[in-house]
Amino acid sequence: MSTRRPTLLLTCGDPAGIGPEIAARVVLSAPLRRTARLVPVGDPEIFERALHQAGSRAKVRPLDPRTFDPRRVESRAVASGIPFLVSSDEGWTSVSPGHATAGSGRAAARSIEVAAGLALEGKADGIVTAPISKHALHLAGTPHPGHTEFLGALTGARETRMLFVARRFRLLLATVHVALRDVPSALTTPSLVRTIEFAAAAARNFGWGVKRPVAVLGLNPHAGEEGMFGDEEERVIAPALREAMARGIRAEGPFPADTFFARLSGPVEKSRWGTVIALYHDQGLIAAKADGIGGATNVTLGLPFVRSSVDHGTAFDRAWKGRRGAARPDPAGLATAVRVGADLALRAGRRGKPMEWKWP
Amino acid sequence: MSTRRPTLLLTCGDPAGIGPEIAARVVLSAPLRRTARLVPVGDPEIFERALHQAGSRAKVRPLDPRTFDPRRVESRAVASGIPFLVSSDEGWTSVSPGHATAGSGRAAARSIEVAAGLALEGKADGIVTAPISKHALHLAGTPHPGHTEFLGALTGARETRMLFVARRFRLLLATVHVALRDVPSALTTPSLVRTIEFAAAAARNFGWGVKRPVAVLGLNPHAGEEGMFGDEEERVIAPALREAMARGIRAEGPFPADTFFARLSGPVEKSRWGTVIALYHDQGLIAAKADGIGGATNVTLGLPFVRSSVDHGTAFDRAWKGRRGAARPDPAGLATAVRVGADLALRAGRRGKPMEWKWP
Repeated sequence: MSTRRPTLLLTCGDPAGIGPEIAARVVLSAPLRRTARLVPVGDPEIFERALHQAGSRAKVRPLDPRTFDPRRVESRAVASGIPFLVSSDEGWTSVSPGHATAGSGRAAARSIEVAAGLALEGKADGIVTAPISKHALHLAGTPHPGHTEFLGALTGARETRMLFVARRFRLLLATVHVALRDVPSALTTPSLVRTIEFAAAAARNFGWGVKRPVAVLGLNPHAGEEGMFGDEEERVIAPALREAMARGIRAEGPFPADTFFARLSGPVEKSRWGTVIALYHDQGLIAAKADGIGGATNVTLGLPFVRSSVDHGTAFDRAWKGRRGAARPDPAGLATAVRVGADLALRAGRRGKPMEWKWP
Repeated sequence: MSTRRPTLLLTCGDPAGIGPEIAARVVLSAPLRRTARLVPVGDPEIFERALHQAGSRAKVRPLDPRTFDPRRVESRAVASGIPFLVSSDEGWTSVSPGHATAGSGRAAARSIEVAAGLALEGKADGIVTAPISKHALHLAGTPHPGHTEFLGALTGARETRMLFVARRFRLLLATVHVALRDVPSALTTPSLVRTIEFAAAAARNFGWGVKRPVAVLGLNPHAGEEGMFGDEEERVIAPALREAMARGIRAEGPFPADTFFARLSGPVEKSRWGTVIALYHDQGLIAAKADGIGGATNVTLGLPFVRSSVDHGTAFDRAWKGRRGAARPDPAGLATAVRVGADLALRAGRRGKPMEWKWP
């Protein structure tokens, strides 16, 4: 694939949510189209309606995924029709705006399958995903609770991790959808070493300064304050840091989480830290979303292609409400996901070889 | 006490840390002196040295705590000497800058005892505390690990809670220095109801709109997402919310913590929420410190007087380093603590009766 202007497939997400609307507004943005060759994936009639809601008269130029050739796609101008990969064609009447249904879940699942399939074939550098509904996926009979698991299964990835790219830091989650009660036992030295390896592999694949250390947060208040509140820092985290160092990875910590984030200032590009590893969902995501929802981009590590995503949900309560007003869906998060996806795809392309998520 | 311009006693904290320096810079600030009748408490020779470090030639006017009369104190002008409550008098040579010692711990403890004693006698509306070292307190043989426990013991408070006043919200911690592993079991319905009662009592004592609901966060990712990851939301938190409502307190939740904080915008005064209850240390403090260290003020609820404090530590590595440079201690956090303390003291004074932290 070209490394100058990457091809990104943009799935429209659950059609009953705000996905098609924010995808349309992103595709209509000339600066974003300069950033990447953006090809939306979904249902053409629904997407045209979203374009209309966004105030555009543009039409889509439907493309068949089976014959898709990225070299023949040009999305800089929209007048001649927006190239659009057709993953389903149920039309607008199939949508119950604001309501998760088996049909909306099926449409969302199909767009992911088509986008991932083409990226696997090397016909795209990455995919950017609009929000889906776990509930709709479930109604549609899909066994995967979310994008990350779904894409892992579609690509045969051995293991994946959620990375968040925020303004001031990159954040990798050591555990994700785990009850807080189960976090301490889910957090083992080997699993933490693997997460640190993921951070190091991401730095290699994306050409981030590999010399900048990985920072690992503590589990307990004040990182346990020398064992006063909990011993996981000494018993689990410190051995993982030593093991990572033995494998040649600069890793430091454990740092008290509250003051660690408070001390970060300036953009991530200039950070002293390569990646920050948070040990559980809220520890990382409260910080990642501190600049507001849409401020962080979710990136899946472990796939053979780049995948970025908004950090918010389908916002069913705000979907398909019309053109104006404060309730109009805000495409800022998806726009950031496109920029992050394009940057990572360029960086991955510069290596001249496939991304690697393996280690001894 | 006067409710127009409250009397606040400002303890200098551990003399080996940055406490005296930031206290001196706060006392030298004319706008802060207009906010409150600020009387520093500590060692006069050390404080004069801190004044000197701050570029001032001002002298202190030593006051004996046993004969202290707030009506005879005027701190608007510094030329005639800064009224200063002498809690210890070991002098500068007793300090090892940057090092916690039994001596620095004793001095810190004495300033707290003197300030709390005078506030208990009604000779001050509140106290504002500069940072202390847990380690120094321990070396000094004090059995209390921090201000909150120490003040609880000095005042005979039955129970206390830590409240943080941040820019966008007020935050009450349901548990504080508890290992993460022990948080789920420490969090019981009765203890959570008590924390909600504390929030309601604070709203009454300080005249915050009592009609604005208390928000309670969830414990698990996405507040458990309907029981998918953990059941504490249903088993512990929901019954506490029902019990609070039965006692006439508006309380809502449990809210997913990451998106809850991300959605807060605008100043706390205009918030839809009265107080937010975080269930454990890092859940609350990552958010409270998201604007940087020093952005939140720690307030102790449950005492008979107002007590506010910086949210940072002694910063031993930056203490007594001279007048200039980036390392010069930043008094912003203590200044905010003075403003918050003055505001709360005024508000508590307007009720015309002592603060109450009792309920059926």
